[in-house]
Amino acid sequence: MEPEVMTRERLKRCISLIAPYIKKTPVMTSSIIDELSGAQLFFKCENFQRGGAYKMRGAIHAMLNLSPEQLKHGVVTHSSGNFAQALALAARELGTTAYIVMPESAPEIKKEAVLAYGGQIYPCLSTLEAREKEADRLVAKTGATFIHPSNDLQVILGQGTAAVELLEEYPNLDNIIVPVGGGGLLGGTAFAMSCIKPHINVFGAEPEEADDAYRSFYSGRIESNVTTNTIADGLRTQLGTYSFPLIREHVSDIILVSESQIIDAMRLIWTRMKLVVEPSSAVALAAVLKDKTRFKNSRTGIVLSGGNVSLDALPF
Amino acid sequence: MEPEVMTRERLKRCISLIAPYIKKTPVMTSSIIDELSGAQLFFKCENFQRGGAYKMRGAIHAMLNLSPEQLKHGVVTHSSGNFAQALALAARELGTTAYIVMPESAPEIKKEAVLAYGGQIYPCLSTLEAREKEADRLVAKTGATFIHPSNDLQVILGQGTAAVELLEEYPNLDNIIVPVGGGGLLGGTAFAMSCIKPHINVFGAEPEEADDAYRSFYSGRIESNVTTNTIADGLRTQLGTYSFPLIREHVSDIILVSESQIIDAMRLIWTRMKLVVEPSSAVALAAVLKDKTRFKNSRTGIVLSGGNVSLDALPF
Repeated sequence: MEPEVMTRERLKRCISLIAPYIKKTPVMTSSIIDELSGAQLFFKCENFQRGGAYKMRGAIHAMLNLSPEQLKHGVVTHSSGNFAQALALAARELGTTAYIVMPESAPEIKKEAVLAYGGQIYPCLSTLEAREKEADRLVAKTGATFIHPSNDLQVILGQGTAAVELLEEYPNLDNIIVPVGGGGLLGGTAFAMSCIKPHINVFGAEPEEADDAYRSFYSGRIESNVTTNTIADGLRTQLGTYSFPLIREHVSDIILVSESQIIDAMRLIWTRMKLVVEPSSAVALAAVLKDKTRFKNSRTGIVLSGGNVSLDALPF
Repeated sequence: MEPEVMTRERLKRCISLIAPYIKKTPVMTSSIIDELSGAQLFFKCENFQRGGAYKMRGAIHAMLNLSPEQLKHGVVTHSSGNFAQALALAARELGTTAYIVMPESAPEIKKEAVLAYGGQIYPCLSTLEAREKEADRLVAKTGATFIHPSNDLQVILGQGTAAVELLEEYPNLDNIIVPVGGGGLLGGTAFAMSCIKPHINVFGAEPEEADDAYRSFYSGRIESNVTTNTIADGLRTQLGTYSFPLIREHVSDIILVSESQIIDAMRLIWTRMKLVVEPSSAVALAAVLKDKTRFKNSRTGIVLSGGNVSLDALPF
């Protein structure tokens, strides 16, 4: 698929295509967190999305763009996280098979969720090379179509729709901030805003411990993660070649946060907003609280990306 | 105040009186929990209520019924839990003082919340006698009005409004089930339903470990708790003389659940619905899952009573 697929018309088409398959998630606010931050914050609750994360948007959109023939043979991805669940759920919705390559080290809770949605799990070693090799083998064997969790333009278009819905409900935002891992959500959000509200500043928020997007943003080329030693397990992935140009063109800045800032923000969302969110979701609020001056008195949207967290491994 | 205050007109007046002070909380559903239970469940999310629990409804309603002179002198209550926070918040809203008698053993997180809302804490021993004595002393000293956390008809009227809102959104329910401790929520819900939808069955859900309401319901007189050794800290209180007649007259049944059933239901709400709820909130879902036959194929409303739980003392 060519980059020219990213047009305003394609975004519109994406929004209506995926509507029957996704939940219009609520937007929540918190007077206490507004007081703490000095900003007015609007939280788009994708932890309530089907499959427990925004990933369903991109997964179903990519699948809805397959031909009937392609669809029949199923889809393949490699993911240890939320995209695995989302693709399994999307495949079930469309009556086909999802072959999910998962590292053996993936949390049991994620494996169970994939199986519960009817996905077929193919375990592999946790290196990127092993994952890709196993995915290639499955494509060759089954004729299924490979769908990358973030480096895929249809996926990226889909992920941007969370921010579009946020803007429908609160049209007068100054900023939107979302976490960045592979860049699907950030790239999609930035592209969508450039189409519908180009004056809104789009920010990425990233753990210091997996800062490839931040460094890439400033060096102008894709940099690799040096460490991925972050609690925000959804953000350990590597920035992709499709999302990076969108991020460079449409994103205002990327803000880094420490592990303790992430955990503090997560605790705040749990205790004050009564929302179960995963650590990756808390990264955007952590950035707003770290950089209060920048967001002071602004109306800022935050995408709470997901709520798939094991209660047996909480950081508090 | 006399029992005849409980009229349909008073309920209507209560609903409009408290409207500016409370949040119209969302109703959530979960296809996974519906599958597990065999029923269609509608969760009224009072964990998102101001002060983190439905208690704000009754607290503000009782205060709005005070004369300006009474209001000026403030209010007194004794509570180790959510009513303490609610009354402190209500007093702040109405520009007066809340004197809160709290047992020394009350969780720090609850004390902090009361202080954050501007309440004044008066510590006491954790016996009911010590609480009442300290509350009497404060009334005598300050001229403030004592408001009981549950055994007060204006409080009971206010608590019933959560179910009224649930019915506005989903008018065709067969049942409503709520947790029972002091009986304010159950009595208020049962009374409200008798006014607006008398054919709806109202159920109470209670921990086996604090089963005074269950035994009172069947013996026909107020029985005392033998143990209060339950994780559902909001339900350790004793059934009151104002709520009991309402419960006897309008409630279909009270269902007892074990501690492990409470914890399992709580875990389900956290992991599947991504909602932070306190153990007391999970008791009603636990009852539905325990008594599946009774609720099979029904449309059942559940009031998730609150979300004030310390993350440092989770049962999982």
